[in-house]
Amino acid sequence: MTDTLDFYFDFSSPYGYFASTAIEQLAADIRRTVRWRPILLGPMFKAMGSGPLVEIPLKGAYARHDIARSARLFGIPYREPAVFPIAAVAASRAALLLQEDDPQQAAEFIKRVYRAYFAEGRDITDMDVLVAAADQAGADGSRLPAGVATDRIKSRLKEEVDAAMARGVFGSPYMIVDGEPFWGFDRFEHIRKWAASAS
Amino acid sequence: MTDTLDFYFDFSSPYGYFASTAIEQLAADIRRTVRWRPILLGPMFKAMGSGPLVEIPLKGAYARHDIARSARLFGIPYREPAVFPIAAVAASRAALLLQEDDPQQAAEFIKRVYRAYFAEGRDITDMDVLVAAADQAGADGSRLPAGVATDRIKSRLKEEVDAAMARGVFGSPYMIVDGEPFWGFDRFEHIRKWAASAS
Repeated sequence: MTDTLDFYFDFSSPYGYFASTAIEQLAADIRRTVRWRPILLGPMFKAMGSGPLVEIPLKGAYARHDIARSARLFGIPYREPAVFPIAAVAASRAALLLQEDDPQQAAEFIKRVYRAYFAEGRDITDMDVLVAAADQAGADGSRLPAGVATDRIKSRLKEEVDAAMARGVFGSPYMIVDGEPFWGFDRFEHIRKWAASAS
Repeated sequence: MTDTLDFYFDFSSPYGYFASTAIEQLAADIRRTVRWRPILLGPMFKAMGSGPLVEIPLKGAYARHDIARSARLFGIPYREPAVFPIAAVAASRAALLLQEDDPQQAAEFIKRVYRAYFAEGRDITDMDVLVAAADQAGADGSRLPAGVATDRIKSRLKEEVDAAMARGVFGSPYMIVDGEPFWGFDRFEHIRKWAASAS
């Protein structure tokens, strides 16, 4: 069994989406297995006295431009969602629920939900969209509506976010490898350099 | 005469320092000439309701780690300054003053001041340090103490910052090429890809 690369992401994060398209290749390159960890940025923004990137004066307009350009330069399908950002609570709970049964199906679900939101113009706060993504990932989507509404799964997501913040996680995507933290899709090359210099 | 790459930087910005070590090569690669443009982040942070990176909860601790690690991974000499961040007003005014006489000497001055602060443990709010850097850059450092205190140069820096913000500049380093904005040392590869796809 190989060591893991913890991959923290918020479903409402475009750079998290970009990272989701390349994280498995990165992990393979440095001989790690991806551990997909959905989080919510809301509580983190609160701790930092910050807010969603695209809503910050000056920086927000640049961010929208940089997001679309990054997608183009890296050849990643992207269309800015009609409603953005969103609180992706249901999708995150669904991912945790699916992971309990089959981490591989859950990973496929996560990638499909990201793509639905950032490339296909779908509304991922809509439970039907999540159910379809789960079915396409080979899981039983019909479990989701009741499953994400349980106190147990609600608590689990809250605990995941608290535990992430206790480890210093404050953004998306955020990767931790052997205790070493990396923030941002633009740190993928740093991870490769770091792994090469550490080995 | 080639087109310019506008390079905006704050002398108190570590990523601006990293960029200063590589910006001329980048510009040469895409057939541009660097136009070195000192700015102050203070007024920009105010507009964004933000503050110095390393003082932000959660993000600050990561930033210190990422700065030191980035220097190591890219082979750039770096030692965290004893006092950091600082208001690098005098250094910025000095750079503008020197540019009036000789942009090439001013560029050399800027690189030396950055190195003094981020690699050699010098205090760049100390006028003696600035005078020495100017002398070493081939300029007449003795002009600086009186020169940076004139209302004219004070106004020029203020105007530069205002004009930069009017163009959307909000961070350091910040590059503009043919009207296209790029923020961050980690966008150097984006600039290369962008230039290649545009030509």
